Amino acid sequence: MRPSRPVRRSVHRILLGVCSLVLAAGASPSLGAEKPPPGKTTAQVLEAAKPSDWRPLDPDFTLYLTLPGGRVVIELAPEFAPLHVANIRQLVRQKYFDGLAVVRSQDNYVVQWGDPAAEGSEEGGEKGKPRSLGDAKATLPPEMDRPIARSEKGAKEEPLPFTPLGDGDVYAPEVGFTDGLPVARDVQAGATGRTWLTHCYAMVGVGRGDTADSGSGAELYVVIGHSPRHLDRNVTLVGRVVQGMEVLSTLPRGTGALGFYEDPAEYVPITSIRLGSDLPDPERAHLEVLRTDTQTFRDLIDARRWRREGWFLDPVGHVSLCNVPLPVRPIPTAPQVDSRAQ
Amino acid sequence: MRPSRPVRRSVHRILLGVCSLVLAAGASPSLGAEKPPPGKTTAQVLEAAKPSDWRPLDPDFTLYLTLPGGRVVIELAPEFAPLHVANIRQLVRQKYFDGLAVVRSQDNYVVQWGDPAAEGSEEGGEKGKPRSLGDAKATLPPEMDRPIARSEKGAKEEPLPFTPLGDGDVYAPEVGFTDGLPVARDVQAGATGRTWLTHCYAMVGVGRGDTADSGSGAELYVVIGHSPRHLDRNVTLVGRVVQGMEVLSTLPRGTGALGFYEDPAEYVPITSIRLGSDLPDPERAHLEVLRTDTQTFRDLIDARRWRREGWFLDPVGHVSLCNVPLPVRPIPTAPQVDSRAQ
Repeated sequence: MRPSRPVRRSVHRILLGVCSLVLAAGASPSLGAEKPPPGKTTAQVLEAAKPSDWRPLDPDFTLYLTLPGGRVVIELAPEFAPLHVANIRQLVRQKYFDGLAVVRSQDNYVVQWGDPAAEGSEEGGEKGKPRSLGDAKATLPPEMDRPIARSEKGAKEEPLPFTPLGDGDVYAPEVGFTDGLPVARDVQAGATGRTWLTHCYAMVGVGRGDTADSGSGAELYVVIGHSPRHLDRNVTLVGRVVQGMEVLSTLPRGTGALGFYEDPAEYVPITSIRLGSDLPDPERAHLEVLRTDTQTFRDLIDARRWRREGWFLDPVGHVSLCNVPLPVRPIPTAPQVDSRAQ
Repeated sequence: MRPSRPVRRSVHRILLGVCSLVLAAGASPSLGAEKPPPGKTTAQVLEAAKPSDWRPLDPDFTLYLTLPGGRVVIELAPEFAPLHVANIRQLVRQKYFDGLAVVRSQDNYVVQWGDPAAEGSEEGGEKGKPRSLGDAKATLPPEMDRPIARSEKGAKEEPLPFTPLGDGDVYAPEVGFTDGLPVARDVQAGATGRTWLTHCYAMVGVGRGDTADSGSGAELYVVIGHSPRHLDRNVTLVGRVVQGMEVLSTLPRGTGALGFYEDPAEYVPITSIRLGSDLPDPERAHLEVLRTDTQTFRDLIDARRWRREGWFLDPVGHVSLCNVPLPVRPIPTAPQVDSRAQ
């Protein structure tokens, strides 16, 4: 694509993204004595991934949020928030969100959308009455954490799959990945241990009032800045954005308290939110995500820990939960050919 | 300001920013057994701060970056990167950056600016020759960490001020704050221990090539996403943005590799970068930052750890380094009146 750029080439390597195709240079100069143990770079891990290391999004649990600036694809997490996910799917099927708006964009924090009329009005009601929730519920019990066991039946149940990060965490006894999501857990909590979703970049949560049961999913937010991990177990998380974060993260910031837009003219209208399974096939995104219960994903964690790309001078040797972005890609359209068989 | 909004009022409390004026409710319902120890909320800490807890920005070490979308105020960190800061000040005084451009905006990572011509050209040179660095240096020794002692003279020197975070860290033996900046340190490293700036949101760093000494400050980046702490001690950091982050964080993302803008028409032109002391007084921002070597700042860390705002259900009890945003405010124009004396 681009011709080589002697100066910029190096600058290109300044900050390597997870999907960078820059390959590791052979030698890694080190400021300290430590060198990374043998292993792969992020690019090498992804190149070596087998087709079976990826899984497609389930269209029944994929949301498409369309804004004037583009489309955002959200994968829901029914294992962690079954009641909220069911309610959100109900709202989406009623086209509840269509014509509502992004009402808040707070720098280094969250973008949030819902019904502007649900917040009253500057001018005393000119925004009209809140939209009916129809057959959806207005409040739900919180789903801020759950048993580690597959069901509530107890310790003998098969546990949720869990790939440990292997490094520590400031907020939780243990962190890692379950079903493609960043999670924390406490094996000592309750009868069978508890696990919960964590507020990393791109996670989607449910706005609530002062009480635990005051959220419904009619108001949702997405993390657009540094991980606000203090919200873990204080809000119900329902999934994550897998594509289109830039559509949300570049929205103008609100100048009101907490980043709310002060003037309704600033609201960003929601064109629609649809469930993947309600869209004709050509309109779906056809994405697949890297499975987190694989050796490939364990290799990815290792690659993110050691940063074997040649540009790094000081071996890192550590990785925090929210610094392992979860790979997403278009489903390859051509049949996968194993080159080793040729 | 705004009338009370029965539904939105609670939503307002969903996610409390550092400067929120929401006061703590008396009782904090708890999902667990633990309750926060007595203490202040963030708002209460800032309300109780004395004028002497704040210090004004030093105009000799404050940069004003003006883009079409607004102005960004950067506080330089000469204690941590004296050579780079001196070189950047030299470049700024030569008006080196005026007319150059933001060339990169990578989602959840960095915005970066410099000389587009320094990277060559798609079309074979039409961007022209790189701009001369004039009296500034083209390369500098890295300043990725430094002794904890005030000078290089050794252990008997007075150490840099350090306010420990008090919680752990995934990347470094110890973290905290020095001179208003998030830092890490290792008291066992070298003769007197080493300390370094960390890649939290809004930190400003120096682009470099593959070798440690290949940066000059002519290419700078700002962290706009989750903290890329793996870059600590791999790049020289030179300061932090204290106002105007939203001007950078909302720039359209580049669609090229690593978020570079592919089409020069996408570049965001730099109107100017000026040193505060070179601006007439009315054009300066007149900001002050909360001193980090104060009891007030220790109280702020405690407030951010325990989140005593009534909205929180599960006491947090932990705080990570990059989740303590450093307070900035306009210098009060009226004389400070101590209400207790009235």
